Formats: sequence, structure tokens, C-alpha cells
Amino acid sequence: MVDPAELATLPRHLVLDAARMALVEDLGRAGDITSAATIPAGTVAKAAIVARRPGVLAGLAVAECAFHLCDKRVGFNAECRDGDTVPAAAVVARLDGPARAILTAERTALNFLCHLSGIATATAALVAGVQHTRARIVDTRKTTPGLRALEKYAVRCGGGWNHRFGLDDAVLIKDNHIAVAGSVTRAIEQARAGAGHMVKIAVEVDSLDQLAEAMVAGPDVVMLDNMAPAEMREAVHLVAGRAITEASGNVTLATVAAIAETGVDVISSGRITHSAPALDLALDVEVG
Amino acid sequence: MVDPAELATLPRHLVLDAARMALVEDLGRAGDITSAATIPAGTVAKAAIVARRPGVLAGLAVAECAFHLCDKRVGFNAECRDGDTVPAAAVVARLDGPARAILTAERTALNFLCHLSGIATATAALVAGVQHTRARIVDTRKTTPGLRALEKYAVRCGGGWNHRFGLDDAVLIKDNHIAVAGSVTRAIEQARAGAGHMVKIAVEVDSLDQLAEAMVAGPDVVMLDNMAPAEMREAVHLVAGRAITEASGNVTLATVAAIAETGVDVISSGRITHSAPALDLALDVEVG
Amino acid sequence: MVDPAELATLPRHLVLDAARMALVEDLGRAGDITSAATIPAGTVAKAAIVARRPGVLAGLAVAECAFHLCDKRVGFNAECRDGDTVPAAAVVARLDGPARAILTAERTALNFLCHLSGIATATAALVAGVQHTRARIVDTRKTTPGLRALEKYAVRCGGGWNHRFGLDDAVLIKDNHIAVAGSVTRAIEQARAGAGHMVKIAVEVDSLDQLAEAMVAGPDVVMLDNMAPAEMREAVHLVAGRAITEASGNVTLATVAAIAETGVDVISSGRITHSAPALDLALDVEVG
Amino acid sequence: MVDPAELATLPRHLVLDAARMALVEDLGRAGDITSAATIPAGTVAKAAIVARRPGVLAGLAVAECAFHLCDKRVGFNAECRDGDTVPAAAVVARLDGPARAILTAERTALNFLCHLSGIATATAALVAGVQHTRARIVDTRKTTPGLRALEKYAVRCGGGWNHRFGLDDAVLIKDNHIAVAGSVTRAIEQARAGAGHMVKIAVEVDSLDQLAEAMVAGPDVVMLDNMAPAEMREAVHLVAGRAITEASGNVTLATVAAIAETGVDVISSGRITHSAPALDLALDVEVG
Amino acid sequence: MVDPAELATLPRHLVLDAARMALVEDLGRAGDITSAATIPAGTVAKAAIVARRPGVLAGLAVAECAFHLCDKRVGFNAECRDGDTVPAAAVVARLDGPARAILTAERTALNFLCHLSGIATATAALVAGVQHTRARIVDTRKTTPGLRALEKYAVRCGGGWNHRFGLDDAVLIKDNHIAVAGSVTRAIEQARAGAGHMVKIAVEVDSLDQLAEAMVAGPDVVMLDNMAPAEMREAVHLVAGRAITEASGNVTLATVAAIAETGVDVISSGRITHSAPALDLALDVEVG
Amino acid sequence: MVDPAELATLPRHLVLDAARMALVEDLGRAGDITSAATIPAGTVAKAAIVARRPGVLAGLAVAECAFHLCDKRVGFNAECRDGDTVPAAAVVARLDGPARAILTAERTALNFLCHLSGIATATAALVAGVQHTRARIVDTRKTTPGLRALEKYAVRCGGGWNHRFGLDDAVLIKDNHIAVAGSVTRAIEQARAGAGHMVKIAVEVDSLDQLAEAMVAGPDVVMLDNMAPAEMREAVHLVAGRAITEASGNVTLATVAAIAETGVDVISSGRITHSAPALDLALDVEVG
Repeated sequence: MVDPAELATLPRHLVLDAARMALVEDLGRAGDITSAATIPAGTVAKAAIVARRPGVLAGLAVAECAFHLCDKRVGFNAECRDGDTVPAAAVVARLDGPARAILTAERTALNFLCHLSGIATATAALVAGVQHTRARIVDTRKTTPGLRALEKYAVRCGGGWNHRFGLDDAVLIKDNHIAVAGSVTRAIEQARAGAGHMVKIAVEVDSLDQLAEAMVAGPDVVMLDNMAPAEMREAVHLVAGRAITEASGNVTLATVAAIAETGVDVISSGRITHSAPALDLALDVEVG
Repeated sequence: MVDPAELATLPRHLVLDAARMALVEDLGRAGDITSAATIPAGTVAKAAIVARRPGVLAGLAVAECAFHLCDKRVGFNAECRDGDTVPAAAVVARLDGPARAILTAERTALNFLCHLSGIATATAALVAGVQHTRARIVDTRKTTPGLRALEKYAVRCGGGWNHRFGLDDAVLIKDNHIAVAGSVTRAIEQARAGAGHMVKIAVEVDSLDQLAEAMVAGPDVVMLDNMAPAEMREAVHLVAGRAITEASGNVTLATVAAIAETGVDVISSGRITHSAPALDLALDVEVG
Repeated sequence: MVDPAELATLPRHLVLDAARMALVEDLGRAGDITSAATIPAGTVAKAAIVARRPGVLAGLAVAECAFHLCDKRVGFNAECRDGDTVPAAAVVARLDGPARAILTAERTALNFLCHLSGIATATAALVAGVQHTRARIVDTRKTTPGLRALEKYAVRCGGGWNHRFGLDDAVLIKDNHIAVAGSVTRAIEQARAGAGHMVKIAVEVDSLDQLAEAMVAGPDVVMLDNMAPAEMREAVHLVAGRAITEASGNVTLATVAAIAETGVDVISSGRITHSAPALDLALDVEVG
Repeated sequence: MVDPAELATLPRHLVLDAARMALVEDLGRAGDITSAATIPAGTVAKAAIVARRPGVLAGLAVAECAFHLCDKRVGFNAECRDGDTVPAAAVVARLDGPARAILTAERTALNFLCHLSGIATATAALVAGVQHTRARIVDTRKTTPGLRALEKYAVRCGGGWNHRFGLDDAVLIKDNHIAVAGSVTRAIEQARAGAGHMVKIAVEVDSLDQLAEAMVAGPDVVMLDNMAPAEMREAVHLVAGRAITEASGNVTLATVAAIAETGVDVISSGRITHSAPALDLALDVEVG
Repeated sequence: MVDPAELATLPRHLVLDAARMALVEDLGRAGDITSAATIPAGTVAKAAIVARRPGVLAGLAVAECAFHLCDKRVGFNAECRDGDTVPAAAVVARLDGPARAILTAERTALNFLCHLSGIATATAALVAGVQHTRARIVDTRKTTPGLRALEKYAVRCGGGWNHRFGLDDAVLIKDNHIAVAGSVTRAIEQARAGAGHMVKIAVEVDSLDQLAEAMVAGPDVVMLDNMAPAEMREAVHLVAGRAITEASGNVTLATVAAIAETGVDVISSGRITHSAPALDLALDVEVG
Repeated sequence: MVDPAELATLPRHLVLDAARMALVEDLGRAGDITSAATIPAGTVAKAAIVARRPGVLAGLAVAECAFHLCDKRVGFNAECRDGDTVPAAAVVARLDGPARAILTAERTALNFLCHLSGIATATAALVAGVQHTRARIVDTRKTTPGLRALEKYAVRCGGGWNHRFGLDDAVLIKDNHIAVAGSVTRAIEQARAGAGHMVKIAVEVDSLDQLAEAMVAGPDVVMLDNMAPAEMREAVHLVAGRAITEASGNVTLATVAAIAETGVDVISSGRITHSAPALDLALDVEVG
């Protein structure tokens, strides 16, 4: 079986830029004045990043990068990998090296790790809810500004898949586009006429009539928006494999199984990126 | 009474940079290929940003900025202000102008508005829980990388207050610093000796003994970490106004009133920034 | 009929950033020392951008932007639009305003206009060569570093269409990927298993046998690389509409008609971006 | 004899910034999704960069940098140096290391190498055409926006020399400046009065009368614009070594020898930067 | 006793960014054309950075960084540390390695070292003038744009201390704020009500009456502006340890002892950053 | 007579970038918390920038820009121009508009204005010292990192002229280059052979013998380093107009007249940029 995390590709420069940007934000003009005042320059320490709650990890490379940008001498030994499910109290990584640098980078590293692991964990919960079906869980463009690539990577770590990455890499015709274009048919035809040959075309429909009209124009993907399971099942039947079917709207842990059981190919969720609570991880320092 | 939102100061360049960065992220190299294909260049439209759930608003200036960066001709008329509590279905702002630009900037604008309003709403809930006391709700450095200034502004909009903004603007001695320094006393003395005269010194303690030792060294703020209400009340009594008292750890809607009733000055919460669910707002377009 | 130039979407910020970057490059630390020494500060002038050779225009917005970044008071009145075919001696735009700013921005504006119009002109020549067929001319990723979005926009102005914009927005399996994967079949299956549902999959084949194998795996696009017309015609017949067919390799003005007449859907050319000679345009100043 | 390529100085940071900018442009938000799907993470490969046509090389350092930015473990062993003339089928460099990184950086590396080698090759052709004279071939400011330093370096690799790098490092009085200033004399005098003592002053003239007037004012360089060989020879005679003579306009392989034989010191060509076709180089991967 | 230089924390990325920015500024588009023309590529050299005048050092890390950014092979062996007082002719650091890189980075390295050491030296002179008292010398926000963090670090190297780093990390109520607020009392009360619990509040007063009014409102710091020693002594007496006392205005080598002897805690000087003459250091190359 | 300030060309984008960078540095993440707390949002004010000491102005455009970046509604009416000599108490500019923005931008605006006017003033003093001769005062590359273009502009405002702007726009052969090259003759010949035809070549000499040798090789400029007036006079006589003569070393108000009277063309001073004390200017606010 395919492991989405294995296939995720996060350009290295995005990892470096993210870690650096966050350190710059936290260190300001004067740097870590607490560590400078209370920790002698030569002090070394050991530390561990520990999960306080169970969850799925994402973002270890950014965390490692934050420590190394502070001081190249910090040793960072991951005990887990992105995509791993860890129990509470699990040691995620062990660190050793200059105590100042470990404490200075701590919050930056954890802010990434907790945020991205929170997304992976929320994704994994939905994925678990549909594992008896063939449906894939996918993300949306409802991501935190500035972190889209990282958050979509975290979705992969949680076993989910990625929808388009921006406005530019696929066509998605929504209700507002249809309203302006005049009809579903016309909107799809215009998109087909105007889009490049490497671009897929998806269309959002909210009724079986609209779906029937859309299918005549031949989109690559139909997004069934906020349909009840019975209607969605009928929609899947109507499409009959001629397009990829995607369910959207009101996707929660409570509803996702029923949605998946309608036979849709893909279920998209904004919540896994915009509202996932952070996973609780912490850094414990051992002195000596 | 002082209104925190009134006093919040978000440098204008941070608003512009944030909106621009997010548009760049969403538009990629090819721009909004869906709107280009389905909406004729001259089409105008009206639209409204509407709250789907009740909550407290934050981020209207960034949202407005996103539309204006796409096309200066988009009219953006806010019907509410940051800090306002709105009911479900409330119209937050009305837009009119080029239809392409409105749809192109929609997601960027909403991503900021939903995220920041989510933080303001979560903050306001805690603030409401302590309004019968004199305690202030404050944030932490557990913010989303790249968005600290905006998120701390959102906390103000929700009626909360700000803790330090980074590692550089105040000293906060935590358990790890104390462990390395050897004792609370020594850590505070070193901080006092090394910090500038405009810098406040806070120290985290987790027992009354540690608090008693700390008070001899005279910190500006004592952070009472994960104390039960009874112990915290005793701690407040022991401090007797000689330092600001701050409660931290396990702060939820269920616990915050009891914490506040111990008499602490300040209650800090990471959850309001790292785990607040997005507030559900949407953009409805009227064609015509 | 669809006009590609009409549908091209060049994000506004890319236009601004490009013009600004080029001015910074040309002005260095000391600015335009020739104009400062020889032209009194208050002098105004009129000027015209004139085509010295016939061609197709692209890049007027960047040119305008260069003048405005130097001095907002420069009037820029385009007499033509991107995508227009102009004869030699055609006036493309008329300018008036501060003489210093016009001369300072001249080379920056022309460098963009000549380069992008060169690409549009080369594209239009190929497009003209296939207009008796249904084939589309498309570009490649063989673009000038830093100018991909602008150059792909210029291809649209010349009547061509865009291939993928980068490594991230579509899968294109080439000979090297096939070699590593072990077989065409395996490479396509892996791509299908690993790619998101909004991503198209193209595969490059160089023989009919390889094509036959590929078609079993069901790619969205087959790229017929360096096939002779007869073989390519057979390939198109073999595909029979089950995938988009793309011809690549040895596409010149001399060969393009024969390639198009094989019935392929798309013909890709690197030359139109990496080797198009600049279109000769100049700025004539009238003193007055 | 002096070897211009030996003396070229391309600041290291420009090489790094260029390679990085181009990778960011190509990788977008999602990275190389084809290699990720089809090539297992641990696969290693060998590859060679091979010239498909004869030409002069330029840009090996940028190409190497592109591979190393993707993965530091890629071995890059150049078999040639910038400035070398290579036959078709020559191996320019051999690579080994992680297969994904080699394929991910391939296009970025080649885009630089083909573009810059194209410029070096076009320059070398002009240089060869004047080698029986003492004339130098020089470039202009007609370069691709964003790549001026790299393109001027490539001109050096092809045996050419550099004109000024921007508007700020030398005075070049053109027809438009003369028109505004009122006369050649006045323009040169103003430039002499206003320019620093480390700045050279060149003036463009298009007739012998204008040249005679200019020589009275004593410029450092006279640019003889679009003069026929006979007139140019007379101009060189008139100048008699009191200024550097530069020929410009209509410089092609067909005309350059005759121009050089007039005795001018320098011949400037825009074509070698703005219209040089890319040199055809490719990357061949060996699996195993 | 506490050594301020020991406690100074200059984030590593600020050092790198500063060195890089200055090299970019000096190298422009063409690099060091003098060294390229006169020094063969393989030449190695030894060199020493030598103090021409006695002073206090600051900025060795930025200087080292400038050489390493030019060429990693340059050996940089500091013979002194930031904060050291050196006599004229002292060797500050020894270098060896590629001669071109040493000469290319020379001016950039020295520009930082001379500027920052000038600030450290000016600071140390004031510090020496108050060493018989308990007063600290502190800086202001009157720093060179772009270099605040480095200059405030240099003040620490000279034995001084830092005032606030910007408008955002402490409240400082000046005459203009008081005028707008209506009274000292009102301004302090508003600041107290509006500022976070980690923020100190300072207020500038210029008379004993104003001081008396201010003390009722309870600021953390009172800035005694331009008071004569006698009045300042009375002010210190009036404050009686209830706030930190800071003297400002007319602080020179001639006046600083008398100011310190009034008993103030802190004396702030803008001159040490905005008007300190550069310390004369030079680089001597040994060929061989 | 030529007015250097009139001819100075400071690219507009450098002014904007400098003002913006300095505001970002001063405002940090939280902005101007003092003004926010003490000044109601709607308050308007009038203010004046006043010279506390006599001097020559430079930098008004950057100052204006700082206010406008804070709030476009701030009115900035300059009463003087860059290059003007003003007496103490002169009103340099009048401002009116939002009180918060005026106070927020005050320090940024003044930091530029005081620093650059300090350089203009120091330059003007040297210029006055040589006005009975034909010598020009010029700057060096001993400028503050990041501010070279602005500082060289300030030198022009003070009546001085500019030396080269960086390592890339002219050749300057110094003692170290000569030592490595083997002889003055060889160094100049190599520079002549390697440099472009638009580049001037200067050589530093420290004795009449070295000068005599240099003159044979024919440099454009000879820099007479640290020569006593008598020797320098002889040097000027020896050069006899065949090169521009530049005096350097030990240039002070006390020595500059004697140096100029030797007949040199140009006198360069590092002190006017690296050690000029800031000119004292302040902002006075009128409430009402």
C-alpha cells in the first residue's frame, strides 16, 4: 500500500526558510536575554523532546533546523520519524550540546512541531474513520498564511492527500464562478477552452440536477458540496466513474464514515488545517 | 474601563507584508486560472463577508489589504470593527468592484480573518470567565510561526493582554534556567545583574518553597506554574503585592474562573493562540 | 474562438517585482549619472516606443511599470495591447513627462519589452504554421531563470499555451524516471499511486512499443519524443483519444506543420523561450 | 596575451543567489512530485552533462550550485572550465549521488548553463571574426533583467569584454541627452563638470561633424553609431588616439570583420546577450 | 562584578546578515576588479589587523564573517576579544589564505570593526568617568539606521548597558506625550492601564515639581532631563529608591562624573552611538 | 559654477527602502506602545523639525518618507533643501497631522537627518577650507555599512564629490596590490590589460620615485598617500597634468588648505563619512 508520508516532498529550502524566519521573529534585536544572563556560555546539556499526548508526528526536520541555526554543535537525534504515531510520554528526539542554544531554539522548534503534528494527528483521525472504504482524505486551501507547504506536508504525514496547492495549479469552479458564467455548462466549457493541457478541472455542484448538467461538459473532478449521504450516494452512482468524486462540507469525525461509505473517491476537510489543536510536546532538559 | 483592542498597535507594514506574503503564496506563478477562464475581465460584482457562527472579530485590516493588493478598485466597507462580538449571519463587510479580484483574494482574506477571529473568540471566552475578578488573560510565545504580531493583536481584540513578544524584550526564568543556574536565588540575581534597567524579570515557580526563595531575590513577576487553586491562593497571599502574580498551566474554560478567584493578577494561556479553532466566516457573492 | 492572451493571468505583484528588480539592477548605488549631469531636473519630454521590426507584443505592463517606478508623473499611453501583431515603425506607446525619468527607465522597459515580444513573436510564427490543424503550440520549462511566469505569459500573447509551470504542478515522467523505475508501466503506476487527485500525469515515450505499454497504465498525456511524422501519426492512431498527445523534439518553423498534421493535440517547443531573438523596439525622444 | 575569462570576477554570492532563486521558481510549494513518486528515496545514480552542439562554456559554477543546493551529497566533477570551447558530444561534467536530487536540479542547472554558454558562444564567434585586428568585442546593457552580472561574465568567457555594468558606473551621452542638452559640446562639458574624477565619459556620435565637435570637448570614449566602414575609418583617423573609439550598430558575423578593420578599439554588440540562442546541453543519467 | 560584554547576546543571524549586506553593497555587479586584475588567482598571503590608535574592540565576529563569506579558506585568528582595551599598534587578528579574498573583504571588515570599536571606545571613556560611583552608562535609540543591534552590542563591549531596543519593548513617556495627555499623572496612568504586565514604564521629567507629580503615579523609571547637578541630587533624594533614576542631556566626558555623583542609577548618552569617531584600525598584508 | 548637490542622483527606491528598513527596526513586533497608550487615536498635532546647531542639511527626503510610511496623512512641508546651510534654531520643516504617526516616526526621521547632515556639515567645512584653490574634496569607501549611497549623497550635499562607489566601478591599485604584483609598473599594466574600456585606473604611490615609475605606465589617477606638502607639490609638478592627482591621508581642517595649495586636483577624506558627529536637530511638537 502507498504511504503518503513517504511520497511527500517538502523542498529543503522551505524548511530552512521557515525555521530561520521563526527564529528571527522570536529573537528580535537583542536575542535570548534570559539564557545569556542565567546560563554560562560554556554550559552543555542534554534534553529530550517528549510527547505529552499521543498523536502523529510532523515537522521534525524544521525542529532540527531551528536548533542547528542557533548553534551547529547541537546534536539532534530523532527517535521517531514524521508520520509515526506516538504514545504519550514517547521520546521523539534527544538533544545534546550548548545549553544556551538548546533553550534559545526550544520554543521555535516546538511551535512548528506541535502545530504540524496537530494537523497530522487530526488528519490521521479522519483517515482512520474511512479506512474500511476506498476514500482518501484531502486538505483544502484553508491553511495558515505563510505555512501552506508545511501544513500540506503535515497532512501527508497524517495519511491524507493534497488538494491543489494554490489558485494556479488546477481549476476549481465554485458556485460564485458558475453564477457569473451563467451556467455550469458554460463555466466548464470556458475552463476547458482556457486551461492548459496539464491542468485538471474540478467543479463544485450542490444538487443532482447541477451534477447531471456538469457531467455533460466532462469535468475531471466533481465536488459534491454539502450533500446528505443518500444524495451523495446517488451522485456517485450518476457519475459512474467518469469523473473523480469529491465530498466537501460538514466533514467531522462523526460524519466522515457515512460520507466515505457513499463511495466517493475523495473527502476534503478544511478543519484538519485551520482548526486542528496543537499536539502537546515539550522539551525536558537534563542538567549535568 | 480600558479597552485592550483600542490600545493595540499593529504596525501598518506588518499588515501589508502579511497580506502580500499570503497572496504570493496562493497565486504562485500562474495566478488565479479559474477566475481568468470563467469570469470576463470587465465583470463587476457585489459581495459580503458574513459570519457563519458567532464570535469576536480580528483581522479586518489584513482582509481589506488582500483585496486592495489584488485590485485597488475593490470597495471594502467594514460594517464591524476588530474586537466586535458578532452573531451568526452578521454581515462583517460589504465589497463591490471587479469580480475577478474579489474571488482571487477571497481565500487569502478569509484565511486571515477566520484564523485571527478564532483567536479573538477563544480569548474572549476566557476573559468572560474571569470578568468577576481582577485577573487579566494574557497570551504566551506559543504562536504560529510568522504570525506572532498578528496573533498577539488578535488576543488584544478578544479582550486579552500580551505577555512578552519574544526572547528579547523581557526576562522569563523557567525551570530549566533555574536548574542550570543552581537555584532560584542565583538565577534571579544573575538576571538582575545582567539585564538592562528597562527590562522586567519574571520567574517561574512550582511550589510555595520555591516562591518564598524567589521573593527574597525580588522578581517583578512570579509565574505560578500548575498550582492547584488552594496552593495558588496561598502563593498570592505570600507575595502580598510585592510582585505581579501570574498563573499558568491547565487554563481552560472549565478551570479559569477558579484560577482567577485565587487573586492572581494575570492568567496566561497558550491554547488561545496555538489551538483556537478558526471562526467560520464566508464570502457571499451577488452577481448583478 | 479562444484567445489565449485574453485568458493569460499574470499576477500583478510579479509585474511590479520584475520591473523593480530590473531597475535596482541597472541603477546600482549612484543612479543615472548621465541624465543627472546632462538634463536639468525640470525638463519635460515626449517620447514614443516604436517597433523597428514587425512582431507580436508582450510585456507592456512591465514597461509601463518601469517608467512609473522612476517617476509617477510619466504618462504612458499604450497604442497597442499585448498580443497585437505590429508592423515595423508602429508606435507601440507614447510617453510624456520628466525627461530624466523617461531616459532612466528606457533600457529597463525595453529590455523586458524586446525580450518578451521576441518570445511572443517566435511563438506566433509556430502558431501560424499549425493553424490549418487543431494542434496547440505549448512551451516547456526551458525558460530564463527568474522570468518563467513572464515568459509563459509571453507565450500566451503569441497564441501559444502553457505546459506545466514547475516541477510541482504536474507529473511528467521522462526517460530517466522510467529507467530508474524499471519500466513505463511501473513508473506510471507509481505516479498514479503517489500523486494527488488534482494532478495530471504525462509520460514521455520514444517508440510505439513504449507507447503501447504506457497506454495500458492510462496516463493523462503522452509525450511523443522525437518521433518521425509517420511514426507519430501511428502513435496518434494508437492512442485513439484515450490520452492527450504531445509532440516534442526538433520543432522548428520547417517541421512544425508536418508534426501538426500527424494529428497530435499539442506541440511543445523549448526554442520559443530559450532561443527567441529579441524583437527590436526602441524609444525615440522628442525634445520640446 | 590576456585571457578575459581568467580575469572575470563573479561575486560568489551572485552565483548562490541565482541558483537558489531559480530552484525556488521551479520547485514551487510542492517540490518535484515526479521524482518523489517514481524514484525511491535511497536510489543513487551517475549522470553526465553533455554538449549536444559545439560551443563555448559558461556557468559551470551556477550549475554545480543548483545540484548542491538540492542535496550536498551530489558529486559534481567538471571535465571542462568556463571559457573552454567544446565539440559536440563532449562530456562537460560528471555527477553522482542521490538520483532524486540530480533529476530535481537538472533543468535549473541546464537552464543556466545553456543560456550562458549560448552567450559565450555567440561572443566567441564575433571575437573570432576580429582576431586579425586589435579590436575588442564588448557587450551592452541590453541584457536579460535579473541576469546582468551573469551574462556579462559569460561575455568574458567567450573572449569578449564588458562595457559599463549599469547607469551608475560610467557616463554615456546618447543622442537623446545631446538633444536635450542642446549640443554635443554642452553635453560633454556638463558631464565633465558633474561627474566624479573616477568616472569615464563616453559620447555617441553619428557623423564626422558631430565627432569633430565632440573631440574638442575631450571625451574619454567616442561611440561611432551606425557608421559605414569608410566613414568609420575616417572617424578613427580624426580621433587619432585622443579617445577610445567604439563602433556600435549593425554588428553581425557578416559585418564585424569590416568594422574591426577600420581600426576602432572596441565593437559593442547587444545581440550577444539579448538574442544569442541557447547552447544545447543535456543531462544523461546512467542507472545502476 | 558583572561584565556587560560577557552578557551581550547578538543573534548569530544578525552578524551574518550584516556582513553579507555590506559585501553585497561593496562588490556590486562586477566584484573586486582591482584584485582580479593584479593578483593571480592562486596567490596566498598573510595579513594582520592592527590598531593604529588605542581603544576598545567590538565587532570581531562581523569582521571574521566578512572574510569567510568571500572565501571559506581564509584563516582568521583573533588575538583579542570584543571588549578588550588595546594599545596603538596592537595586533587584533592575524589572517592567512587567498590574497584576493583578504583584499576583497578588507574594507567591509574594517568598516564594521572601526565603527563598532569607535562606539565601544567612546562608551568606555564615559564608563571610566563614573567608575567611582554606582551609575551605569546606557545608550539611546539615537543609532545608525540598520545597525541598532550591532551598535547596542558595541555599547555593551565598552562597559555600558542598553536602554530599550525600540519603540515596542518599553514605554518611555516624553514631554510630547505628556503635553498631549494633559498631565504627567494622566500619561502615566494611561500607560499603566494600557501596557502589558511585562513592560516597564519610564517617564521624562524636567523639574522637581513634575517629578513629584510623577512619583505619585508610580513609574518604574524616571528620566531626569537636563537637570543641573544640584537639582538632580535633590531629585534622587525625592525619589528615594522608589523608581530607577536616569539622567539624560548634556552628558560629556567633562560633565559625566558630576552627574554620576548626584546618585542617579543610570546615565544615558546618544553621543556614544551617533557621534563616536571611528577607531583607526588597518589591515597590513605580508606578501610571501 | 557647478553645484554638486544639484547633480546628486539618489535612486528613489534607495530612499524608500532606507526609511522602511529603519522603521521596521524601530517598531519591532508591537509598534509604538507609548504613543498608543498615551495619545488618543484621533489626536492631531503640529510640529517642526528644528536645527539646534548650525550646519548643512542632507536627508530631507528620507525623513519625509519615514513620516509618510507611518501615515500618509502627515503633512511634511520642507522650509529648506538638502545642501542648504542653516543657522541654529532654523526651522527645517513643518509637520501637521496625526499625532501618533508624527511621534512614532520622529526618531527614525531624525536619525537619518542628523547622521546625513553631520556628514554634509563635515564635508562643507573641508570644502570651505579649500575654496581659494581648485581642489575638490571627495569621499572614500570608509562608509557605514548599508548606508553608502546615502552617505555619498550627503557628501555631495556638503559640496564634496564622490570617489568610486564600490570595488566594482573603478580600479584602485593600493600598496598591497603593488606588493603582490611585484612592481607599480606591473600592477598598472595588468590593470590596463584586464580592465574594461569604461573603467578608470588609479594607483596609490607614497614616494616621488614610485610616482615617476607609475607615470610611465600611464594611470588615469595618481593617489599621493601621506605626502608632506612640499613633496606633494613636487609630485603635482612631476605629473604635469598627465593624470589626475589625488591627495590622501591626514586630511583635517588644520591641514586641508596646505594640501590643496600644493595644486592637487582632488583631496579624499574618510573622516567626513566615518567620523562626522551627528548634526543636532530635533522635533518640537505643538499641541492644539
